[in-house]
Amino acid sequence: MSAATTSAVTISTPGYRVLSQADIIAEIERLPDVAAILGGTASDWRIRDVADGYMNAVFIVEGPDGGVCAKQSLPWVRYHGESWPLSENRASFEASYMKRLGGVVGELAPKLYHFDPSLQFIVMQQLTPHIILRGGLIEGRRFPKVAGDVGRYVATAAFHTSDLGVPFETKFEDVSLFARNHAVLRISVDLIFIDPYVEVWRNRFIPEIGAWARAFREDVALKTAVARHRNAFLSNRQALLHGDLHSGSVMVTEDETRVIDGEFSTFGPIGFDLGAFVANLVIAWYAQGGYDRDPAERDAFRAFILDQIATLWTTFRREFLALWEANPAAGDGYPATHFADAAGAARLSTIRSDFVDAIFRDLVAFAAIKMIRRVISYAQVADFMVIEDTVRRAEAQAGTLALARSLLKHPERYPDLGALLDAIPRFERAGLDPDAPSAR
Amino acid sequence: MSAATTSAVTISTPGYRVLSQADIIAEIERLPDVAAILGGTASDWRIRDVADGYMNAVFIVEGPDGGVCAKQSLPWVRYHGESWPLSENRASFEASYMKRLGGVVGELAPKLYHFDPSLQFIVMQQLTPHIILRGGLIEGRRFPKVAGDVGRYVATAAFHTSDLGVPFETKFEDVSLFARNHAVLRISVDLIFIDPYVEVWRNRFIPEIGAWARAFREDVALKTAVARHRNAFLSNRQALLHGDLHSGSVMVTEDETRVIDGEFSTFGPIGFDLGAFVANLVIAWYAQGGYDRDPAERDAFRAFILDQIATLWTTFRREFLALWEANPAAGDGYPATHFADAAGAARLSTIRSDFVDAIFRDLVAFAAIKMIRRVISYAQVADFMVIEDTVRRAEAQAGTLALARSLLKHPERYPDLGALLDAIPRFERAGLDPDAPSAR
Repeated sequence: MSAATTSAVTISTPGYRVLSQADIIAEIERLPDVAAILGGTASDWRIRDVADGYMNAVFIVEGPDGGVCAKQSLPWVRYHGESWPLSENRASFEASYMKRLGGVVGELAPKLYHFDPSLQFIVMQQLTPHIILRGGLIEGRRFPKVAGDVGRYVATAAFHTSDLGVPFETKFEDVSLFARNHAVLRISVDLIFIDPYVEVWRNRFIPEIGAWARAFREDVALKTAVARHRNAFLSNRQALLHGDLHSGSVMVTEDETRVIDGEFSTFGPIGFDLGAFVANLVIAWYAQGGYDRDPAERDAFRAFILDQIATLWTTFRREFLALWEANPAAGDGYPATHFADAAGAARLSTIRSDFVDAIFRDLVAFAAIKMIRRVISYAQVADFMVIEDTVRRAEAQAGTLALARSLLKHPERYPDLGALLDAIPRFERAGLDPDAPSAR
Repeated sequence: MSAATTSAVTISTPGYRVLSQADIIAEIERLPDVAAILGGTASDWRIRDVADGYMNAVFIVEGPDGGVCAKQSLPWVRYHGESWPLSENRASFEASYMKRLGGVVGELAPKLYHFDPSLQFIVMQQLTPHIILRGGLIEGRRFPKVAGDVGRYVATAAFHTSDLGVPFETKFEDVSLFARNHAVLRISVDLIFIDPYVEVWRNRFIPEIGAWARAFREDVALKTAVARHRNAFLSNRQALLHGDLHSGSVMVTEDETRVIDGEFSTFGPIGFDLGAFVANLVIAWYAQGGYDRDPAERDAFRAFILDQIATLWTTFRREFLALWEANPAAGDGYPATHFADAAGAARLSTIRSDFVDAIFRDLVAFAAIKMIRRVISYAQVADFMVIEDTVRRAEAQAGTLALARSLLKHPERYPDLGALLDAIPRFERAGLDPDAPSAR
């Protein structure tokens, strides 16, 4: 990515133009199936801007009978503006991701109604009364089904796009398609894997966390661990990932969970998606320490968060293994004919268990890397930003960074879920000095 | 791949037809640059069929001034016939491979003169007086530069298509292109990684080696090791591979080496290409035991083969590390900014050394897997086939299989080149009983 000052917006999609609200109404008017969802005629429809993420224009359009969500990729990063150009082709990949997984994840994702490649314009199911999970976590609201649902979502999406779930020809066609989604992947690579460990104009962090940022820039062992996982992220095409599965990409009610925003979709290690979600739950846990809230209530909510991390992993593990056992001949990874007799069946059981153990190790490392990027890189999170007292904010962030450093530098201490859960409270008092005993 | 009896030839390339020799002359007549290489006019040109591999139609066309090699993909496996259909699109990938590496490997590959996508027809530099390396090895001829040249070829091709040598955007565009080359990859997956461990119509081996084949089908630990590497082959997009780098894909003179036949090109682990070449040198070593040749001469030639294996690895290692050191900021794998100070530089040196050590471990495993497929799967090799006495042939093959089994099941015994070279003679007397002490 070039420095902002030297970049220029260019558009490579023929026919592309940025749609106004009136344009969006006009586009929808031409889609009878979508218009039927809204009911009435265009003059009855209301449109409002609901853009919340960093990247795209997003609107809700509502009519007498119902509503839809309309989304357009812009040729720049919406949050930053035109001085950060970005290929507008990314809605293509979000639509491809929704199409590829539509038959697999069922009601865990919104329905895709329409995709226009020349406008990079998507119309999908409106989610109402769902809210963004991140906001719910900040408010201390409990959504008891979300972690299990996300675990099931990742298990299903990953299995059915991996060498366990499909012949490799299917996987390679998918790989071919999603490998072209590299304009946004440059953002992932830079913001997640490179920027936090160097001084760069995009990094944003409060001065109080500066000693930690400096310590990370100088920590060769930490950067080595990050390098190992950056290379795995770039080289391991294990399954189709969501690629940005944080708590802002999940919409919830008490009963329902919907995963949205697949524009970062890419093939990579399954632990990357799981780690992203865990990182954001961990961030929610630490951020609670900076909120003015009744201590007993806070402790109970934190216990709920830890419980959700446990549920995410145990659900993923159970569902993924169940899919594999139910579909022993679906892919080329472990052909049923090679493990047909009793000895083979016993070995396959061990292989499966080793396979998910390796995913857990990846989860731990990618979770740590994701925690770090949310503190000392460009894309900050509301969990911390709502803490106005910057010392309290930095203290909450420091715990997150201390945990992340330990996860990356001492993976042998975190062989299983219990070890990970135990570690989270242990780093709460890490403090602003990265060399203090409490930070180790 | 379906069983032969249920398959039917289909053609998906518009305009495709199988070219006769007269058609090829007519095609070349329309290419002024190629016609100029031949000299004279079409009536002066001679064409002859030189197809040697399993897959394609290959001709040499010669005129008064020079010659070219013309190659067309057929919609079936040439060696097997129309009862084994295969997508004819594979010349596209061979041409793409030649184009992608043309500026990188220089004179180590023939020049591409012309590619016609609708005919899946390639015209390239004629290699003369080069011979196929496999034939030279069978005759006991020494080509002193080949192993070093192949080591340099793999180092260069791998580095410049990996996350060390190019930004990941470049790599992902390449990944996207070559991931579509899966029709031939099905052949690799089946014949190399699946067939040798099951009973299937395509397997061809002499009855004398039947006890070994059965032992391999029943060896759960062996199949587990193969599974691990099959999954790495399918999931690790480390670099662009040749994909079929055996001694039939290398043409030589005493002074020159040319790598040909890139139609199996795919992204995968670098050790796969190195392992393929090592496997075929190892096969040549064992096969020598079945040839009637003066013992002293045989021992000397075998020493030469071991020396070539050593040269391949040491050259690859030296050249690959030199490229990495000379291009520290070329890719996203290990950003120079993360390892800029003295501690970082020291660590990067360790990282590089670990990186090539991991490639060596892959080399050992993939070499073993490639040895096995050349004995108990479809595509047999001339090195063994020229041994008419099937007991002697099986004895040579048994040594190869015994070594391969040990390499796969006991990788800890083969941490370095010396251990690998020492092991080759040790299994020469393995014998036809896979359970005999000599076979362990």
